[in-house]
Parts: sequence; C-alpha cells; structure tokens
Amino acid sequence: MLDDLKLPYEERAKKAMNPAAKRLFSLMAEKQTNLTLANDETDPKKFLELAGRLGPEIAVLKTHIDILNSFSPSIPKTLSALAETHNFMIFEDRKLADIGSILSQQYSGGIYRIADWANLVNVHAVPGPAIIDAIDGVMKEKKDEIPRGILVLAQMSSEGTLATGEYTKKAVDMANAHKEAVAGYIGNGGDVAQLKQLVGMAFGGHAILTPGVQIQSKGDSMGQRYTLPEEAVSAGSDSIIVGRGIYKSDDPVKMAKTYRQAGWKAYIARTGGRS
Amino acid sequence: MLDDLKLPYEERAKKAMNPAAKRLFSLMAEKQTNLTLANDETDPKKFLELAGRLGPEIAVLKTHIDILNSFSPSIPKTLSALAETHNFMIFEDRKLADIGSILSQQYSGGIYRIADWANLVNVHAVPGPAIIDAIDGVMKEKKDEIPRGILVLAQMSSEGTLATGEYTKKAVDMANAHKEAVAGYIGNGGDVAQLKQLVGMAFGGHAILTPGVQIQSKGDSMGQRYTLPEEAVSAGSDSIIVGRGIYKSDDPVKMAKTYRQAGWKAYIARTGGRS
Repeated sequence: MLDDLKLPYEERAKKAMNPAAKRLFSLMAEKQTNLTLANDETDPKKFLELAGRLGPEIAVLKTHIDILNSFSPSIPKTLSALAETHNFMIFEDRKLADIGSILSQQYSGGIYRIADWANLVNVHAVPGPAIIDAIDGVMKEKKDEIPRGILVLAQMSSEGTLATGEYTKKAVDMANAHKEAVAGYIGNGGDVAQLKQLVGMAFGGHAILTPGVQIQSKGDSMGQRYTLPEEAVSAGSDSIIVGRGIYKSDDPVKMAKTYRQAGWKAYIARTGGRS
Repeated sequence: MLDDLKLPYEERAKKAMNPAAKRLFSLMAEKQTNLTLANDETDPKKFLELAGRLGPEIAVLKTHIDILNSFSPSIPKTLSALAETHNFMIFEDRKLADIGSILSQQYSGGIYRIADWANLVNVHAVPGPAIIDAIDGVMKEKKDEIPRGILVLAQMSSEGTLATGEYTKKAVDMANAHKEAVAGYIGNGGDVAQLKQLVGMAFGGHAILTPGVQIQSKGDSMGQRYTLPEEAVSAGSDSIIVGRGIYKSDDPVKMAKTYRQAGWKAYIARTGGRS
C-alpha cells in the first residue's frame, strides 16, 4: 500500500472490502482522530469511566475483557452505548491463536461473547489460515448491523518477537487471501523499519493499527519498546494505539488530546498537508 | 532428548528442573497413564461431570476455561478437588500470546485467576522470551504448594501453521534458557516428522504433550490433522492429548480406557518393553 499512504482515509474507506475497515476509515476521517485507546483498567467501574471520559477523543477503544476483575453482560452493553454516544469502535485485543473449532467458541461464546459487542478482534497468524475462516464463519452467521472485522497480528512490538521476516510475509498472505473478513493489521509501531516492510506488502483497503507508540517513555521492564507517533504514522500506521501513556498520566483527557493531535498532524502531513 | 526417549518417566522426573514437570512424570509413572483429556465441554455441569468420570483414567485434564458458558470460582474449586481425589494435573490451554504486562494479568487476574488453580499453562513463542519471564514472575510470587509450569507451543497441529522450522527452533531456545520455569512443550502429534524434529532439540527434563492424536478420524473440517497414539508416542510424545475422540463417543469411559491403553502400551514399547 505504499502508493496509498498519501490517500485520505475517505479514499481508503472506498478501497476497503471489509465492513469494519470501511467504518474505521470513515470514522477517523469524520471525527478527525486516529487514536486508539488501550483501556487496560482492571476495575470495571474505572474501565467504563475511562471509556466515557476519553470516548470523544478516540477512533477505537481497545479492550482486554479478560483482565477485568469482575464481569457481567452489562459491561459490554454499557461500553457499546458509550461507543454509540461518542462514535468510536470497539476492538477486543484477544489475540486468538487456537485451532478453528476452539477459537470460534472463544470468539462467539464463553461468558464474554466477544462477537456480540466487538467490531474488531485480532488473531495471531501462527495457527495458519483456518483461524481466519473460523472467525469469518461466526461473523457471517450474525444477522445484526454491527460491522465486524479481523485484525491480523503481522508483527509485535515486544523484544525478540518471532513475528518478523518470513512470518510477517505469511501473515500478510493470509490477510490478502481474505480481504472481506480482514479489516487490517497490528503492525509494529515500535520498529519503523519493520512497519515499513509490512506497509509495503499490505492491501490499501486494510488498516494498520500500531502499538508501541509513546511520546515520552522509551520502554518498560517487560520487553516492550516504543517509538514516536509521528514516526509511526509517517511510516504507515493508520491508527496509533496508546495505553499507559494516556491513562496512567496525571491528566488522561489532556494527554489523549496531545496524542490525538500528534497522530492527526502526522496523518495530515503524510497525506499532503490538507487540514 | 533422543537418548532420553528410552528412559522411564521416573528417570525423566529426576532430570526435570520444573516442579510441575517433575510431578507430571512421577504421576504418569505411578498412575500408569499418559493420557491428557481435552475437556472442551462448554456447560459447566457437563464439564465437571466429565472430569469426575474420566479422572481415574488420565494424567492431565486440559481446560479452555473461557469457553464455559457460565463461570463462578466454585468451578475451578470443584475441579481442583476432583484433581486431588483422582490424582490428575490441570492444564489451562490458554495459549497466552501477549506482551508481558498484559499476560501476567491474564494468567493471574481477571475473573478466571488461572494461576490459582492450573498446574500448567501454555504460551505461544511469537511474543518473544519476555512471555516466559512474565509468567515466571507470577509463579515465583505464589507461596502455596501447587507445582506450576509453562508449556511452550513449539508446534501446532493445524494445517498451514507457521510454528515450524526456524520458529520451532527459536521456541526451543526460549524453553532451554528457562528450564526451571518451563515444564515442557506442546508438540505436533499430527505430524510425526515435525514432532521428531522437536524431540531432537528438547531437554530430557521437559515433557512433550501432543494434540492431533486420534484412533479413528483423519481430520475435521476446520484444518485439524490427526495421527495414531502409537506413532506419536514412538516419535517422542510423552502425553497424548485427546478430546472429541473420547468425550463425543458413545461411551467416553470405555474410549478413555482405549486411549489410555494405547498410549501406555506405546510408552512401554518405547522404553524397552517392561510392563
């Protein structure tokens, strides 16, 4: 998608063949934000409060529903209402990575019923292409109006990850063979050279969301690396994923605005300076 | 561990540096079973019933706690009591595959609190070595007497999996660098040539558990492949993982006994014919 990097999100939406990718590109253009908030609060009350407070700033809210320390169906229900009110999408960062018969249950069943409320869910490429077919099968059974799509983890931002080189290439092959089921990728925002490799192979109708982006910090003690928003977006990130950098700060709303502006400014610069 | 394949489980237990691996080898020797039951029942009542009925036949009960259609802490509590009564270990097949800061919460927190009741939990190698350090950190904080260990997914039995060749080699490097935290591997029982490659690189104190084993069927419609118990054990599987082949049969107890005998006979043959 190297040639498509200069296209505004509205044009990318037209290229997209997956409904959630179309919606994501349109939403980002309309709301003028390409910020994804990684909401890793573990207390359900704080989790929902954060979603409500930062909802106006973000394109996507990323969840780890399985780290909440209590759960009831009212949580995703409230979250969906907030998504409706503030116009953001919900991405469950489940990193599905099992064989088809199990992961279709992990996606649609259990107590979380992810498929009922998440627009986006990600999968690791390591199990092989059947992982996409299995999720796609569940998505096709749904008769509601919720746009759904898969994000393929083509890369990771953790140190020593095996999702590089040939692995990334094969992940892209899987996504390119399933353009209607796949909404895009998780690409490595923490390593610009790697991200560029992914961008070079990806389809322009797929969105690349990148973790590993922070304005200040340069890493944590658990193998996580970071880069700057403008570097990531310039290299081809369509949405920067920021978590602790925002919600652990003294003023999460102010920090969300800072990241939103940095990400948007970089997108405007990339697409040729309109604003 | 090619030279160690002829060793009885008692000797492998002595080599093991991880407490859960030690316990697993000892338990298999003592109970004369190397059968792991994949309990994929989604109804909690049926799930616990199956654990109780087949507990006497098995070395390990493998769970997907997140596909149960309802959950309360009484479920793992009851399961742990059954494990105590019938002398089997519990393996949560969570396939952890996130960055360290998240997966340590997925392992220890959330509503499932896997670390509180599972002896074994598996991790994908794709995030890099920090995934083992993060789990190890949680395990070391626990002050109880439960033996815990990590199973590294070095291979998968699904078609087109990327966990082959260099990926498998790097997964083994990670495990070999963490002999005390790692209890063993998930190796591909569905492809004997691949399994042998893993066995050739693995440490003899690590156990290899293999899915993709069935007496009859030759695959499903979702990319899963199968091989025979005797082929898998002869190639180096220390425990065969069987699910649908047992619990979807007309007589699960009878079928569990059939697999138990096939697996044990193959182990006796491998280690030189004592019985």
